[in-house]
Amino acid sequence: MRLRSLRAAVTATASIAAVFGALVMTAAPTAAKADEGMWTFDNFPIQTVNQKYGTHIDQAWLDRVRNASVRIQGCSASFVSPEGLILTNWHCVVGCAQELSTPDQDFVKNGFTAATREEERRCPGQTAEVLTEIVDVTDRVLAAGEGLEGAAFNAARTAEINKIQTEACAGDPKFNCQVISFYRGGRYSLYKFRKFDDVRLVFAPENQAAFFGGDPDNFNFPRYALDAGFLRAYEDGKPVESPNFLKWNPNAPAEGDVTFVSGNPGTTQRLLTMSQLERLRDQQLPVTLIQNSELRGRLLEYSLTGDEAKRVSFDPVFGLENSFKVYYGQQGALTDPAFMARKREEENELRARVAADPALVQKIGDPWADLERVQATARDLYLPYRQLEQSAGGGSQLYAYARAIVRASKNTAMTDAQRAQLTTALTTETPIYADMEEIRMRYWLSKTREYLTVDNPEVKAMLGRESPEALADRLITGTKLADPAFRAQALTMTTAQLAEADPLLAFVIANDDAAKAIGDRWAAAVNAPTARAAEKVAQARFAVYGTNLYPDATFSLRLSYGQVGGWTYRGVTVPAFTYMGGLYERATGSEPFNLAQAFADNESRVNKDVVYDFSSTNDIIGGNSGSPVINAQGEVIGAAFDGNIHSLGGSFGYDGELNRTVTVSTAAITEALRNVYPNPRILEELGVK
Amino acid sequence: MRLRSLRAAVTATASIAAVFGALVMTAAPTAAKADEGMWTFDNFPIQTVNQKYGTHIDQAWLDRVRNASVRIQGCSASFVSPEGLILTNWHCVVGCAQELSTPDQDFVKNGFTAATREEERRCPGQTAEVLTEIVDVTDRVLAAGEGLEGAAFNAARTAEINKIQTEACAGDPKFNCQVISFYRGGRYSLYKFRKFDDVRLVFAPENQAAFFGGDPDNFNFPRYALDAGFLRAYEDGKPVESPNFLKWNPNAPAEGDVTFVSGNPGTTQRLLTMSQLERLRDQQLPVTLIQNSELRGRLLEYSLTGDEAKRVSFDPVFGLENSFKVYYGQQGALTDPAFMARKREEENELRARVAADPALVQKIGDPWADLERVQATARDLYLPYRQLEQSAGGGSQLYAYARAIVRASKNTAMTDAQRAQLTTALTTETPIYADMEEIRMRYWLSKTREYLTVDNPEVKAMLGRESPEALADRLITGTKLADPAFRAQALTMTTAQLAEADPLLAFVIANDDAAKAIGDRWAAAVNAPTARAAEKVAQARFAVYGTNLYPDATFSLRLSYGQVGGWTYRGVTVPAFTYMGGLYERATGSEPFNLAQAFADNESRVNKDVVYDFSSTNDIIGGNSGSPVINAQGEVIGAAFDGNIHSLGGSFGYDGELNRTVTVSTAAITEALRNVYPNPRILEELGVK
Repeated sequence: MRLRSLRAAVTATASIAAVFGALVMTAAPTAAKADEGMWTFDNFPIQTVNQKYGTHIDQAWLDRVRNASVRIQGCSASFVSPEGLILTNWHCVVGCAQELSTPDQDFVKNGFTAATREEERRCPGQTAEVLTEIVDVTDRVLAAGEGLEGAAFNAARTAEINKIQTEACAGDPKFNCQVISFYRGGRYSLYKFRKFDDVRLVFAPENQAAFFGGDPDNFNFPRYALDAGFLRAYEDGKPVESPNFLKWNPNAPAEGDVTFVSGNPGTTQRLLTMSQLERLRDQQLPVTLIQNSELRGRLLEYSLTGDEAKRVSFDPVFGLENSFKVYYGQQGALTDPAFMARKREEENELRARVAADPALVQKIGDPWADLERVQATARDLYLPYRQLEQSAGGGSQLYAYARAIVRASKNTAMTDAQRAQLTTALTTETPIYADMEEIRMRYWLSKTREYLTVDNPEVKAMLGRESPEALADRLITGTKLADPAFRAQALTMTTAQLAEADPLLAFVIANDDAAKAIGDRWAAAVNAPTARAAEKVAQARFAVYGTNLYPDATFSLRLSYGQVGGWTYRGVTVPAFTYMGGLYERATGSEPFNLAQAFADNESRVNKDVVYDFSSTNDIIGGNSGSPVINAQGEVIGAAFDGNIHSLGGSFGYDGELNRTVTVSTAAITEALRNVYPNPRILEELGVK
Repeated sequence: MRLRSLRAAVTATASIAAVFGALVMTAAPTAAKADEGMWTFDNFPIQTVNQKYGTHIDQAWLDRVRNASVRIQGCSASFVSPEGLILTNWHCVVGCAQELSTPDQDFVKNGFTAATREEERRCPGQTAEVLTEIVDVTDRVLAAGEGLEGAAFNAARTAEINKIQTEACAGDPKFNCQVISFYRGGRYSLYKFRKFDDVRLVFAPENQAAFFGGDPDNFNFPRYALDAGFLRAYEDGKPVESPNFLKWNPNAPAEGDVTFVSGNPGTTQRLLTMSQLERLRDQQLPVTLIQNSELRGRLLEYSLTGDEAKRVSFDPVFGLENSFKVYYGQQGALTDPAFMARKREEENELRARVAADPALVQKIGDPWADLERVQATARDLYLPYRQLEQSAGGGSQLYAYARAIVRASKNTAMTDAQRAQLTTALTTETPIYADMEEIRMRYWLSKTREYLTVDNPEVKAMLGRESPEALADRLITGTKLADPAFRAQALTMTTAQLAEADPLLAFVIANDDAAKAIGDRWAAAVNAPTARAAEKVAQARFAVYGTNLYPDATFSLRLSYGQVGGWTYRGVTVPAFTYMGGLYERATGSEPFNLAQAFADNESRVNKDVVYDFSSTNDIIGGNSGSPVINAQGEVIGAAFDGNIHSLGGSFGYDGELNRTVTVSTAAITEALRNVYPNPRILEELGVK
């Protein structure tokens, strides 16, 4: 799977049948059983783990792991040498490989190896962040919204959060300060990150080695994927010093060994109320699955039209199929009667315990009823919000540029620093594929007309007398926004000048008031009351169950513990390990089950007994991609790159019997760097003989 | 909408947002209120209608209408002259127009007009059937299955049904005898049809006149569509005599006028139990919507690759989008909490009344519990059943030929007559579009791998070492089945010879045992117990509510009554009529809102005050397309071609406030035949001056 990101689509494939199987959640809603939990570093259950696994985790161990953990765009990673070398997944660097590629030099298909440091190539827009400090700011954030509703509530909260962030970073560009919500608003923490802006690609294998089995095998296990890549953080043109790196252990773990995963799970929805889950199930997920499927069909047909089409669509198709599988798995959980019954039971128990405590009722009221009312509003607003604002542009990069430029031109409150940051982001050179831009735009325009109807005023304003296809063609063919120089120039223009300068900018300007209006309505009528009610549900949970709880994932650093192990489903046991020899047995010669060239060429040299990938009970989710998997000694033994098919329901609840993390072993990476993609430079840096 | 067929996809578009609005069903599950009901001709509520509307319906009136009503492939129609002239919808003849077209002569785009009888052109495979007799055969059918289960039950029932049919028609090829299920098995009737095998195209307007507004306007109203076409039934090379034709009334009705719709509604699911509805909602509809969306995306991108691609994909895309909208609307109803609560209330009421009657309980047991158990089995079997058998081939015509030929080669029980009929069907010359065949095959193969997983034995057997794309290419490029002569020859070969003769035949032979096996399992473990239990639910309903009930639709002749009227939804009132002038106001010049050429050319001659389309309260569903809309005098005043967006939930329940039938008026057709597509020959035959 593609565990990466909040923004990047999160996805899944393979045993789509299995997600209709029964999902069993841990019985108690409160005390995390089995190896459940994506724990923050300031609330990790040290004692529980040490007791269960006989480990000697202490604060120093936690600090060391935290300082070695790296957050990158949409993914997780870790320092694995003292000189800024970063291990992550191939699928977290493939976007960079694609952007550095040209029709003549395809680093996605052929892989990328920098023979020397000088050949390491900067990844456009990539950053690396290390968490250095956590401060509880709950009181300040809650106080800011007190007594306010809707837009005023949002504005006051946002202002206070901005203030906290600005104060904490004090304008130092080497840091990023972010206030992050936990327990759906039960707690707010300031996370301060040391930030590196210059991150370069060191090594990526061929896509066919990393993504062997492609979408069909995605979220499946047994698995034979070298889903690993290396980056390096630079500052002032030199490699960053990273003394807190994780030591590379080139040996595979044994069944039952304890494993820790340190990374940034993107989003879980385990603390949502029943009414929230039902709206997801009945409206948001179905519409998303249906629309994504159509786009998938469009891109798949396009990808078959030629070699260049295949090349440029590889990563977008991968991302789309990955997120499709994730959503499909989520829908499987929400349409499983047994799973929903358990969820309802949990909610009823909490509500009954609240009802039995008059003081608590007095304090929090009935946030479940509040959230049910919010869902009715959300049902009404969702389609226009989705089509006009949230998913506007259908993923077109040019549309995203246009909207950012238009909104910046109207934003008088923007600071010079913010404008400088935006300029950097918008003027970074990245390849634009006009065909796919046009597919996305016509898809978006036609779905918007379909879901909002022909006679909707916003739709009429957008289309005028043009068809979605003709309009998409005119805008994408006519725009100059593919040129970074024009984007830089556009950022200096007034809104009126922008409207004259470019057809896509003119289109966005003509329709942006409506888009912003529905976005504002959603924020005021859905987000604001949801925040208020959800934080009361969190307070109820703290009051009833105590604070020994882990929060929902919010793409912030977490630590999960578990152990190496397979699982048994419907009488079939899946072992914990695959071996490199299995790759050659599974290969059919046809995509996506063909061997990568280097694996085919070097078959005689490869040690087929080396552990390739392994599964463990760690509780993870999309965003954890690239997370170091760590043994009791704090050494890295792999990079988590997937969950099994059962883990897809994990967004709503962890099942210790079935949910598994899938990891590419350092043993396999080492073997590959020795005998498949020989790379003594990296091996030496990793301390491997 | 495309009301046509069971086999042909049934579809819908437009106000996709509205289907999430509340659906209100009639309060009583039993007595049909408002204008609810798709009544059989032997149980029509004559008195109720005469009382409510002051009409004078009697048995003679019903007999006359029945004898004028015509069933065609997937659609409804009527005789409108004494010489076999048939009125139906354009969208019921567009398939014929497409099959008669060539790259140089596009009857879909340009329309078709036979200047003389000699120029009327036979529609491949089209038949016309007139219902002549209804006989209750319930006792015989039920007795046949007594004491049997599963496959034995199915076999005994099928044998008895075949026997009844064979006896009734006595080998006369001019008749078709069909035993049809009503009330989900509460009653079985023998329907005897006079059948005509030679049906010719007389007139079809340009697609842009008939389908103005395209998919976006489909299932919408107000509407401006000339969705009408004429066929003629022939026998022995001469037009059929049809003395029982409906008189053509060239004037539009007035608001409130009573309207009857006589036609063949395809399928409704109003009598399903809650557990059946829930499986539809949670599994069957989501998977269908998701897969259809991907195919839609694939075909849409293909249609943009050139003029010929656009031409050949027109009807398939139309069909797919239509069925997508239908299913989406159905899902909207099943995810509406208020609608489902009402359904549950009705079921609880019936079950409580049954429980209060020990004799009834003794007789029928607990069929609701039986059906709940069947759903668990159906959930397990659905995906393999769907992928390997039910939807195998993804709609590829060549695959369908191959399967029919292979199964015939193995079927030793086939009579000479059956074989002759199959030969006629398979050797009819119809154009095959290789590109689309390949798209459908690769779509089906890749979805089958995705939903059943890579490691499924049937999937492995199908794909071998090939990718879905390569396999689809090899099979479609290599097969000779596009040639009718080869199909005729293949029908004479043994299975072993077929395997040698053609790669697609060999592929089907290699995988057909698995497909038939899952089909047989589904029939024995799902269909058989469903039939047994559903007929007991029907008996419960008769016992509790009496027999003054209408049955679910089964593509058999029904009569619905109602009146001309618009509706009000969320404070917005939609009037009952549109006028021809409105077409010119709605036209934007861009597809699908551009004017048809003849409408543009003849604008000055068109009487813009003529009623174009109108809406009425009649209760219809897909399959009713082309049904004559009849006034109290038994004259035809239009052809039903659509339902409004609210009618999509009508599969599960009729809402008199919102569900509407949409009809193209005879007034508009007359005006078009005068001033847009001048056709004095047809006007004269219709008796219009």
